[in-house]
Amino acid sequence: MTAENGRSSHPVTMRDVAKVAGVSVATVSHVVNDNPNARIGEAARERVRRAIDELGYRPNALAKNLVSGHSKFIGLVADAIATTPFAGQIIHGAQDEAWKHGYVLLVANTEGNRAAEDEAIGMMLEHKVRGILYSTWYHRAAEIPRALLETDVVLVDCFSEAGEAPAVVPDEVEGGRSATRLLLDAGHRRIAIVNTTTPSPAHDGRLRGYREALDAAGIPFDETLVFDARPEQEGGYDVTGAVLATGATAVFCHNDRVAMGLYDGLRDRGLSIPSDVAVVGFDNQEVIAAHLRPPLTTVALPHYELGVLGVRLLLGLEPVPDGGRLAVACPPVIRSSV
Amino acid sequence: MTAENGRSSHPVTMRDVAKVAGVSVATVSHVVNDNPNARIGEAARERVRRAIDELGYRPNALAKNLVSGHSKFIGLVADAIATTPFAGQIIHGAQDEAWKHGYVLLVANTEGNRAAEDEAIGMMLEHKVRGILYSTWYHRAAEIPRALLETDVVLVDCFSEAGEAPAVVPDEVEGGRSATRLLLDAGHRRIAIVNTTTPSPAHDGRLRGYREALDAAGIPFDETLVFDARPEQEGGYDVTGAVLATGATAVFCHNDRVAMGLYDGLRDRGLSIPSDVAVVGFDNQEVIAAHLRPPLTTVALPHYELGVLGVRLLLGLEPVPDGGRLAVACPPVIRSSV
Repeated sequence: MTAENGRSSHPVTMRDVAKVAGVSVATVSHVVNDNPNARIGEAARERVRRAIDELGYRPNALAKNLVSGHSKFIGLVADAIATTPFAGQIIHGAQDEAWKHGYVLLVANTEGNRAAEDEAIGMMLEHKVRGILYSTWYHRAAEIPRALLETDVVLVDCFSEAGEAPAVVPDEVEGGRSATRLLLDAGHRRIAIVNTTTPSPAHDGRLRGYREALDAAGIPFDETLVFDARPEQEGGYDVTGAVLATGATAVFCHNDRVAMGLYDGLRDRGLSIPSDVAVVGFDNQEVIAAHLRPPLTTVALPHYELGVLGVRLLLGLEPVPDGGRLAVACPPVIRSSV
Repeated sequence: MTAENGRSSHPVTMRDVAKVAGVSVATVSHVVNDNPNARIGEAARERVRRAIDELGYRPNALAKNLVSGHSKFIGLVADAIATTPFAGQIIHGAQDEAWKHGYVLLVANTEGNRAAEDEAIGMMLEHKVRGILYSTWYHRAAEIPRALLETDVVLVDCFSEAGEAPAVVPDEVEGGRSATRLLLDAGHRRIAIVNTTTPSPAHDGRLRGYREALDAAGIPFDETLVFDARPEQEGGYDVTGAVLATGATAVFCHNDRVAMGLYDGLRDRGLSIPSDVAVVGFDNQEVIAAHLRPPLTTVALPHYELGVLGVRLLLGLEPVPDGGRLAVACPPVIRSSV
């Protein structure tokens, strides 16, 4: 509230609203808190609402939460998603869905530090959050901090081996099938897969999807077409020669970074994409995939949807599936490398 | 609280703590709220603390904040930093510094939507935040939402032309000088700059730094060595031929993405980096800069420090400099492209 518009500089109180609306402070309080037991005529209610707008009155959310016994907070404890190139969309999705239902998201980024994690969870419990989303920046099994079990919890982009909490994760198998099918549909029959050296659901799931897609196309699985490489540019670059030696005409890369390295390896050998070799990535890491030469056809990790569905599961708006894990589809993103 | 460890499943209350410590509920409340007017012996205080630890009691932060009249929240309203490839470090820095001083960061990502912004600010004011950081994902002049002026505000990675609030921004001029000096120090005398087509503090500041560094080295400014390109890979690729036509032996690129495009353009012409042409980027966008072939020497945007200093200015731990804008150094990151 500034002085220029003729108002005093003290924060607007319920008393000010009551005065302008010509009602009691109790009436204002009932309207602000949506008290279902209070009988207030529509005219008075309208006058209160108009006075609130006019004066710019802001109810004290802390007091409101205290009266109702719970807050309108949802916690999000993340190891590194706010500071990771692309997993931040989990925050975006969770926030949009939380707001839709009148909740505010409390975000704590812990960089995987257990002490910071305990501190963040403690803070959230003290603020009487409705529940907590626990999220990791890549899909993996997570050991759940005990304190989380004091409230409702949903795991996002990770899961508990012991099944202690429901989880929302990307459907790696389906993503692997999609990626492989993009290459099969373009007529390729000899398709290599450059997988990651890191044991993970992504490693196992994408390989399984690759095998299932080949199987469905009647192409026998050939172990010599399967490579493991460090899941970054250098890994893709270094494996190029070995991949070419198999006579593969198409490559499904574990992620877009590996594809970027493979691009360099192919270019060094004077080969063109996709006329000599077709390439599909995974992740849809925009800053890379959309700007390679040629732009990379890939499969998207559904980060935004993971965040949305995490909140929906937490609020009971979505049923928890059998097995406790909700698998979200990874849609293909068609560009020019196939 | 789980049943297995012999405790009941209801949340631990102040009454439980009082019982175990053998004191009154009022005494527990005084200890929990650090009430300076209450006279409590050290022995009783110690018993309360031990009971709190033992029972895992979590004081209600909402009630505590209501009693003290303000909360321990700092708001961070950002247009897109949580979902941007690398500016998320602003959140990380702000959070670390806030926690250090007992504050919790409320993060709202608005994707630049004015309505979402007003909603987020309103929510934060209702929660009686200590103040709000308002941040953008790239350095620019920002029009400040009026509601922000109802509380203390610090601008991070942006500023108000009218000087309505203190700001923390990267020192673009100093960054431009650093980048250019890296090339001068390697013996280059004919240095091109591929700037952005977008009018911005980065455009003007980095160009000024480039000129100042040349000046200090006694090299006259040559306008034909200045190029403007779209600030992404395609811009860098497309400008390659024109840059080479000037006879430049080194290029200072507006950002790492432009450098990545220029790499492709140089490679297409059979030129090597750095032996034929040296390249320096800007931003230190890790996923690109660290993994190009050769890895890119660049200048880092100090996102983490911007977040830290935003909180320090807000809490009065750092003096607001003359002019209201605190400029933070952009440190060089040496890799292999010079």
